Amino acid sequence: MLFHVRMDVRLPHDLDPDAKAEIIAREKAYAQELQRSGKWPQIWRIVGEYANISIFDVESNDELHTLLSGLPLFQYMDIEVTPLAKHPSDIKD
Amino acid sequence: MLFHVRMDVRLPHDLDPDAKAEIIAREKAYAQELQRSGKWPQIWRIVGEYANISIFDVESNDELHTLLSGLPLFQYMDIEVTPLAKHPSDIKD
Amino acid sequence: MLFHVRMDVRLPHDLDPDAKAEIIAREKAYAQELQRSGKWPQIWRIVGEYANISIFDVESNDELHTLLSGLPLFQYMDIEVTPLAKHPSDIKD
Amino acid sequence: MLFHVRMDVRLPHDLDPDAKAEIIAREKAYAQELQRSGKWPQIWRIVGEYANISIFDVESNDELHTLLSGLPLFQYMDIEVTPLAKHPSDIKD
Amino acid sequence: MLFHVRMDVRLPHDLDPDAKAEIIAREKAYAQELQRSGKWPQIWRIVGEYANISIFDVESNDELHTLLSGLPLFQYMDIEVTPLAKHPSDIKD
Amino acid sequence: MLFHVRMDVRLPHDLDPDAKAEIIAREKAYAQELQRSGKWPQIWRIVGEYANISIFDVESNDELHTLLSGLPLFQYMDIEVTPLAKHPSDIKD
Amino acid sequence: MLFHVRMDVRLPHDLDPDAKAEIIAREKAYAQELQRSGKWPQIWRIVGEYANISIFDVESNDELHTLLSGLPLFQYMDIEVTPLAKHPSDIKD
Amino acid sequence: MLFHVRMDVRLPHDLDPDAKAEIIAREKAYAQELQRSGKWPQIWRIVGEYANISIFDVESNDELHTLLSGLPLFQYMDIEVTPLAKHPSDIKD
Amino acid sequence: MLFHVRMDVRLPHDLDPDAKAEIIAREKAYAQELQRSGKWPQIWRIVGEYANISIFDVESNDELHTLLSGLPLFQYMDIEVTPLAKHPSDIKD
Amino acid sequence: MLFHVRMDVRLPHDLDPDAKAEIIAREKAYAQELQRSGKWPQIWRIVGEYANISIFDVESNDELHTLLSGLPLFQYMDIEVTPLAKHPSDIKD
Repeated sequence: MLFHVRMDVRLPHDLDPDAKAEIIAREKAYAQELQRSGKWPQIWRIVGEYANISIFDVESNDELHTLLSGLPLFQYMDIEVTPLAKHPSDIKD
Repeated sequence: MLFHVRMDVRLPHDLDPDAKAEIIAREKAYAQELQRSGKWPQIWRIVGEYANISIFDVESNDELHTLLSGLPLFQYMDIEVTPLAKHPSDIKD
Repeated sequence: MLFHVRMDVRLPHDLDPDAKAEIIAREKAYAQELQRSGKWPQIWRIVGEYANISIFDVESNDELHTLLSGLPLFQYMDIEVTPLAKHPSDIKD
Repeated sequence: MLFHVRMDVRLPHDLDPDAKAEIIAREKAYAQELQRSGKWPQIWRIVGEYANISIFDVESNDELHTLLSGLPLFQYMDIEVTPLAKHPSDIKD
Repeated sequence: MLFHVRMDVRLPHDLDPDAKAEIIAREKAYAQELQRSGKWPQIWRIVGEYANISIFDVESNDELHTLLSGLPLFQYMDIEVTPLAKHPSDIKD
Repeated sequence: MLFHVRMDVRLPHDLDPDAKAEIIAREKAYAQELQRSGKWPQIWRIVGEYANISIFDVESNDELHTLLSGLPLFQYMDIEVTPLAKHPSDIKD
Repeated sequence: MLFHVRMDVRLPHDLDPDAKAEIIAREKAYAQELQRSGKWPQIWRIVGEYANISIFDVESNDELHTLLSGLPLFQYMDIEVTPLAKHPSDIKD
Repeated sequence: MLFHVRMDVRLPHDLDPDAKAEIIAREKAYAQELQRSGKWPQIWRIVGEYANISIFDVESNDELHTLLSGLPLFQYMDIEVTPLAKHPSDIKD
Repeated sequence: MLFHVRMDVRLPHDLDPDAKAEIIAREKAYAQELQRSGKWPQIWRIVGEYANISIFDVESNDELHTLLSGLPLFQYMDIEVTPLAKHPSDIKD
Repeated sequence: MLFHVRMDVRLPHDLDPDAKAEIIAREKAYAQELQRSGKWPQIWRIVGEYANISIFDVESNDELHTLLSGLPLFQYMDIEVTPLAKHPSDIKD
């Protein structure tokens, strides 16, 4: 079941540089692990913004919230979730 | 080069039913032809809305505008285009 | 799997009164059938508005879109879907 | 008398971790006590957000404000209240 | 129990003048009857707009929706309801 | 001459508790003095928000600004003023 | 007593050309009469828009609403009124 | 003196096709004449929208309004004007 | 050439009181000097807000930006500029 | 390939003055280098705002994001990118 997710990162300006580097590294590892598992099949950078648009493929709303709230940057992000359905013009099975 | 495109369809309520059926059929054929060509690799329905979220893969801004303005429903749609870049956490090459 | 759905009805002012009565009757029958099936467990009127807030309980995003796009008033409504998850403070199992 | 309430939590980034843990624990206890009393019959997490959608069942506007302004997190939340009425298509008595 | 209600009237430009005069007369009679009953204690015109701000005093959300949806102009209005509570600085009993 | 005023209080999270208590006490005294003078005939709490809706009765725009800018919490509030006129359906003289 | 007023004109596209010319002529005569009376001391066109920004000088809110609702184009305009007060840095008496 | 102008075209759906073709041809001729005169040095299509972003180079606000309100499509467009100044980092003289 | 300018002041809550008094005094002197020069012919306080609406009379966009960016409070203000043209109903020469 | 870019600078009020001067100098050097390279052919100041409107001329979305995210002020800016296409009325080749 697919969901469209937009994440906007708002890091506080006074975040300690080491803490910032560490949390960003953890975020990247977490995102790549979910990509490898197939749960997070797509991620794109929005040009000019510290933001991404992603597609998640999960079993349920609860699973999606668990994945998103586990993001190391979760407390610093605005996240907007849009549920997706198959489009009648889609040629993929 | 990838672009995120959201299309919201606003058909006038007094559109002739035959004209409506005909234009929707042409829209579907057009969308499927572009999918087969690889220019429109993804299309999803937004749950509960007469709208889609799509990914386009084109050579240039001009090509994208040509494709979108050629949509049979173009005059009845609000379209919002967001340019995408590779995300540093993306594991795909 | 629960979804929060807000529906705002925008009937055209020049809709034929008989057609209007007929479509509203079909909408009511459709809504009550889905309530009886357990798919649409809650529906409330928003005070002062021709709008409702509802809870749907479905198996998937696709099922939800099928149910919503089948509403007789679908073409006259603005619908906004919000996926829900279990709240950690919820005392129900 | 039912009210739809949406609460968005905005904790300051520099809140002391112990103070944060303590206030969240008090919030949970408070929410569960109101659920047990029947005043707060429904609470759901909005997927991807530090926010909830709830249904309150109270005797009056004053009672609802007393309950909401007593939330331990009240000063850190944006709260939006929508009064609900019985929907004419509702099949429950 | 008090509610703050804002009503914005949007009459279609092509409404028949007699039908318009008749519905406005019925609206006025309805509004004055509710004022005399004590249910609609305050009504003010917003300067420069075809809109009013009103205070309603009712027993319940359901009663308020019944009163508002019975307005002859209901189908031509955008209505926004805000529940009110006693303010701690209010000097009236 | 009547004005509708909405005030939203935004206290900084790091305000000293004693300073906060003192300024809130001064705000209350100021509001009650203006109510007794007849300049501020109505004040209501918006349910679920640290905000009020008020009616002011003043001689001029300048007098209203003097009263509002003298509020002890003025620097911490967003204030929105709407001028009111007599409504043609109002039954009061 | 001064008020800032912004008026945006939204003429229906299907308005009869003669009726349109006649109402615009009446609007102009009305606006010029109020300017001569001193009630409407300033009127400017917003560049690129069918809109104006004006200053009104009236005795009361009721007088302002009477003047604005008497505009021949009133039913075709969105009007926004902002009350003005003397600025402490203003060097005029 | 430079101005940034965004124009969004909103043609009524029921515009007569011949009238539509004629007005669009006049719009194009008008735009090209102003480009040749140097008053309208830049015009770009916004990808996916029936809209343009333009730069105008005029002597005064009045001249700009005269040019814009003379557009054949003026009554069918939303226009937003932003005055531009020289940027301190601009390397052009 | 006239411009409509709205300025909203957002002073940080933790600004040093002496620095605050000093910058406000400089702002007032600057505003009065520009009024005396004829560049800033009108300034009004918006009732209930720490904001003003002003009219500037300048030779060019560049001059206006120079004047506005020279405001002592510039870094603490949101400024919105609207270019004005002569209105066809204006009776002044 | 052209893109319209709007950048709004939001410097924290408590930024160290030396750090501020240094970062602004680096921003200027970076912007001028990109102008000389032909990648950033246009930059204008928005009158009254700490913001610019720019045109970028790049090979791809990825190149644009690399250039924008390399701006020394990137973390302090809100950036909005709009892809541009050739306008059919444009007289330039």
